[in-house]
Amino acid sequence: MTTQPFKVSIALFGATGDLSRRKLLPSIFHLFQEGSLKDDFALIAVGRRDITDDDFREVARKAISENDKLETLEGLELFLEHVHYVKLSITESDTYSSLKDKFEDIEGTLDTGGNRLFYLAMPPQYFTDITDNLRISGITETEGSKKLIIEKPFGKDYDSAYKLNEEISKSFKEHEIYRIDHYLGKEMVQNIEVIRFSNSLFEPLWNNHYVSNVQITSSESLGVLDRAEYYERSGAVRDMFQNHMLQVVSLLGMEPPVSLNSNDIREEKIKVLKSLRKVEEQDIRKYFVRGQYDEGVADGEYVRSYREEENVSENSNTPTFIAARLFIDNFRWAGVPFYVRTGKRMKNKETKIVVEFREVPMNLYYQNESDDLLAKNLLVIRIQPNESITLHLNVKDYAGEQDTKEIKMSYSVDPTDLSRTVDAYENLIYDCLSGDATNFTHYEELMNAWSFVDPVNAVWESELASFPNYRSGSNGPVKSSLLLSKDGFKWWDV
Amino acid sequence: MTTQPFKVSIALFGATGDLSRRKLLPSIFHLFQEGSLKDDFALIAVGRRDITDDDFREVARKAISENDKLETLEGLELFLEHVHYVKLSITESDTYSSLKDKFEDIEGTLDTGGNRLFYLAMPPQYFTDITDNLRISGITETEGSKKLIIEKPFGKDYDSAYKLNEEISKSFKEHEIYRIDHYLGKEMVQNIEVIRFSNSLFEPLWNNHYVSNVQITSSESLGVLDRAEYYERSGAVRDMFQNHMLQVVSLLGMEPPVSLNSNDIREEKIKVLKSLRKVEEQDIRKYFVRGQYDEGVADGEYVRSYREEENVSENSNTPTFIAARLFIDNFRWAGVPFYVRTGKRMKNKETKIVVEFREVPMNLYYQNESDDLLAKNLLVIRIQPNESITLHLNVKDYAGEQDTKEIKMSYSVDPTDLSRTVDAYENLIYDCLSGDATNFTHYEELMNAWSFVDPVNAVWESELASFPNYRSGSNGPVKSSLLLSKDGFKWWDV
Repeated sequence: MTTQPFKVSIALFGATGDLSRRKLLPSIFHLFQEGSLKDDFALIAVGRRDITDDDFREVARKAISENDKLETLEGLELFLEHVHYVKLSITESDTYSSLKDKFEDIEGTLDTGGNRLFYLAMPPQYFTDITDNLRISGITETEGSKKLIIEKPFGKDYDSAYKLNEEISKSFKEHEIYRIDHYLGKEMVQNIEVIRFSNSLFEPLWNNHYVSNVQITSSESLGVLDRAEYYERSGAVRDMFQNHMLQVVSLLGMEPPVSLNSNDIREEKIKVLKSLRKVEEQDIRKYFVRGQYDEGVADGEYVRSYREEENVSENSNTPTFIAARLFIDNFRWAGVPFYVRTGKRMKNKETKIVVEFREVPMNLYYQNESDDLLAKNLLVIRIQPNESITLHLNVKDYAGEQDTKEIKMSYSVDPTDLSRTVDAYENLIYDCLSGDATNFTHYEELMNAWSFVDPVNAVWESELASFPNYRSGSNGPVKSSLLLSKDGFKWWDV
Repeated sequence: MTTQPFKVSIALFGATGDLSRRKLLPSIFHLFQEGSLKDDFALIAVGRRDITDDDFREVARKAISENDKLETLEGLELFLEHVHYVKLSITESDTYSSLKDKFEDIEGTLDTGGNRLFYLAMPPQYFTDITDNLRISGITETEGSKKLIIEKPFGKDYDSAYKLNEEISKSFKEHEIYRIDHYLGKEMVQNIEVIRFSNSLFEPLWNNHYVSNVQITSSESLGVLDRAEYYERSGAVRDMFQNHMLQVVSLLGMEPPVSLNSNDIREEKIKVLKSLRKVEEQDIRKYFVRGQYDEGVADGEYVRSYREEENVSENSNTPTFIAARLFIDNFRWAGVPFYVRTGKRMKNKETKIVVEFREVPMNLYYQNESDDLLAKNLLVIRIQPNESITLHLNVKDYAGEQDTKEIKMSYSVDPTDLSRTVDAYENLIYDCLSGDATNFTHYEELMNAWSFVDPVNAVWESELASFPNYRSGSNGPVKSSLLLSKDGFKWWDV
C-alpha cells in the first residue's frame, strides 16, 4: 500500500446496509489501519434514518468488531472520530443540503483538498436520483477531485445502460465513474497478464497457429440462495456471462498492450469485445446452450430445483446456466473457438481456464490413427477455489508399455500470500482513490458486452425453454458437451 | 522385452575380465531369466586360460551370484548349461579353430539360425587381431547374421579411427558393427526426443527465434580413480567431449526425424555434427577452456591434485576439464551458442541441460534497464543424479513488493520406474540382438566428431597449459565462466 495517505471525504450511501456493514466499513477501517487513510480523511455515512453521529459510530463499531478478517481492532476509536452521519432522503434534492454542509464542515477542518468520493452501496434504481441530486445541490462542484463508485448491474441491456449512463454523465465524467466489476480481482487479472507477458515461452504460442481452443469455466455448486428476486430478472447471461465471462475472454484474447497502464489494457480488451463474432438467431440456437437446474444432490445434500426456490416463478424461463462457443475474428484468433460456460448448482465450485494446444504437426509415436495416446498439451490456469498454474506435457513412459505418458507440472499460489488483504473491497476503494481503473468497467467495455449479449437475451426471452434441463450437482445440460464434441473437442475435466 | 526369444550364439572375448564379471555375465543371465534368450542360445566364453567349461561356469556362477541388482537367481543352473568355454590365443589365428568348432557344435544341436554375436570386452589394441582372425579362421562365414560389439574408445583421432575401421571392415560391414556409446542411455535419449517431438509447446520455440543459448553440463565429483593409465592418454576431450557431449548437442539440435527409427535419428544427428562450426587455432584459444584439477575438498573430503594421482605424470598436460562454446551453423540454430562443459573433481555430480529462452520482446514490468527482475524462462532437463524436467516461469508476486516472481514447475521421474533394468549393458545387448542401433555410434557420427575435436587436441597437446588451474570441488577454471559472460550469459546453477 501507499506511504502517502489519501486526502479525501468519502460519502457512503447505504451505510447501514448489508454490504456496508459486512464489507465496506471494515475495508475502509483497514485502509485507515494501514495508513492509506489518515488525518485528512472523513467518512460520511448517508442514510434515511434519523440517527446521530454516535449512533452510527456504534453501528460501525459493531460491524467492524464482528468482522473476522481483521487481525486487530487497533485504531478503531481514532477511526470512528473520522466518521460522521448525515440523514437525507435520496429522492428529495433539498435534503442534500445537509450533506453539502457536512462536506464543507469537514473541508474547513481537515486538509482533504476538496476531494470527494461517493460510494453508492444501493440498488441501481437509485443511481440517477442520487447523481442528479448531488449535482442539483451543488455537491459535485468541488475544488478537488470527485469520484463515483457504483455497484453492478449497470443496466439490463444496451438501451437501458445507455440511458443510465446519459443520466449519470450529467454529473460525472467517464473518468470519474468507477463501475465495480471485480469478479476476477485485480490480482488474478494481473496474474493472467504476467503469465502472458512476462514469459517468452507462452506469447509466441498464444495464437491460432498453436492454440486449438480455449475453455473458460466458472461454476458454482450453490443455487440462487436469497438472491432470487434479482436473479429472476438477470439470469446467468446478465449475472455472469455479459460481464465476468466476457472479461476473462478479453483478458486471454487481447493483444499485448502498449503498457500495463489500465487504460492501455482496457483499450486492448475493448478491441477483443469488438472482434467477437456477432451472433444471429440461428447461431444462438446452434452455439449457445441455456440451462436451468432441477433438483439433485449438490455438495452432498439434496437440493430443490430452481423453480422451487423462494421468490422464483414456478414456470420461470430464467437460465441458471449458459454455455457458448465464441470466436474472436481477428488475425490472432481467427478459427480458434473460445468455449465459455457458467452455471449454478454445478458439480464443482471452480473457475478455471484451459488453453488447449494443437497436436504436434506429426505424431512420431503412435502411427495408428485410432491411437489417442499422445496427450494434448494443456495450460490450466485455476482461479478458484485455489489459484494455480498447471502444464500438461508428455514425457517418456519409463515404467509402462507405451512410449510416452502424460505428466502435469504445477505451481500453486501459497494461500497465505493471498490472505494479506482484508477483502477485495479494500482493494477496490484503494484503487479508486489512486485512480487505478483496472478493476472497474469502462463504458465502452460495458456497451460492447451488452451489444454482444442482447441478441441472446432477445431470443431466449421470447421462447420458452424446456426447463429444468440439468440435475443439480451435474456438469450442466448435455447440449453443453455437444457444443464441443461437434468440433472434435471436449470440456477438460482437469 | 520381447516375447520371441533370440536365436543366437554369443562369443564373449575377455569373459573372465572385470567388465564381464561385473556387468556382462549378469546382464546376459537376466536376459535369459526374462525369456529374451532361451533354448536356442549359447554363450561361448573366450579366454587365454586353460580351463574347462565347468571351471568357467563356476566363475560365472560366482559373478552372477554376487551381483546385487539381480532380484533372484532362479534359472541360473539352466542358464549355465548354455555356457561354454573356449581357450584361444587372440593373436594366433590357428588357435581360432577351437572357437569355430564350438560354434559348429552348438549349431548342430541348437536352432540358433547360425546367428553369431561377438562381444569384444577387451582393450582396443586387440580389436583388429580378433576381427582379422575371426575372418581368417572362417568364423565370420555363417548362414545366419553376424554382429560385433566393441567398447570405446574407437581410435584416438580421425586418422587412427579411420585405420581401425578399415581393418575391422575387412571382416564386418558397417551395419554389423555396434560401437558402444551408452552414456545417456537409450531411455534418456528417448526422453529428450519425447520432450521435443511429442509436445506441441516446445518444438515451435526450439530454434534461434526463441532460444538464446543452450547449456550442457556433465560434471563428476570423482577424480580419475584407477583409470589414470587410460586417462593420461585420453583426457576430458576424448573421454567425454568427443563422444558424449557432442551426442547431447546433436540430440538437442537435430531436426525432427522422418521417423523414430534409429537410422533416421542418426541421420539427423550426423547433420548436426556436420553443421558444427569448424574451429581454428584462434577460436580454440578464445572459445575452448581446458582445466586440470588441483587439490581441494570434494564430496566433503580432502583430495589430491590430478598430477599427484597414481600413474599420472607429475607435469601432466592432460585436461580433466573442458568447456566450449559451439555453434550449429544451420537455419534453426544460427547465432545460438551451445555451451558445453565436462570435468572431474567438480562441485557436483550432475548431468543437465539448460535451454535458456530469449527475453520477452518487451519488458512491460520493469522499465528501468538496470532492473533484472524478470527471470528468464528456462527448461532444465536433468539426467543425473535424478531425472527430472523443470520449467522456470514468471507469475504474479502475490506476497512481495515486485510485480512478478520466478517459479519452478517440476516433474521428477520416479526412481522405481528407472530401476526395472538390471543394467545398461542388458539393454545394449538386447538392442544389438534386435538390430536397434540407437545406443551405438555410427562410423559417420564418429568421424565427424573426431574431425571436429582433432584441432582442439592438436593445439592443446602442442602447448603446455599452466595446470593445475581449478580446485577440486569447484566449478572448474574461472575462464569457463568468462566464456559465457563475454556473451552476456552465465552458467545456470539450477
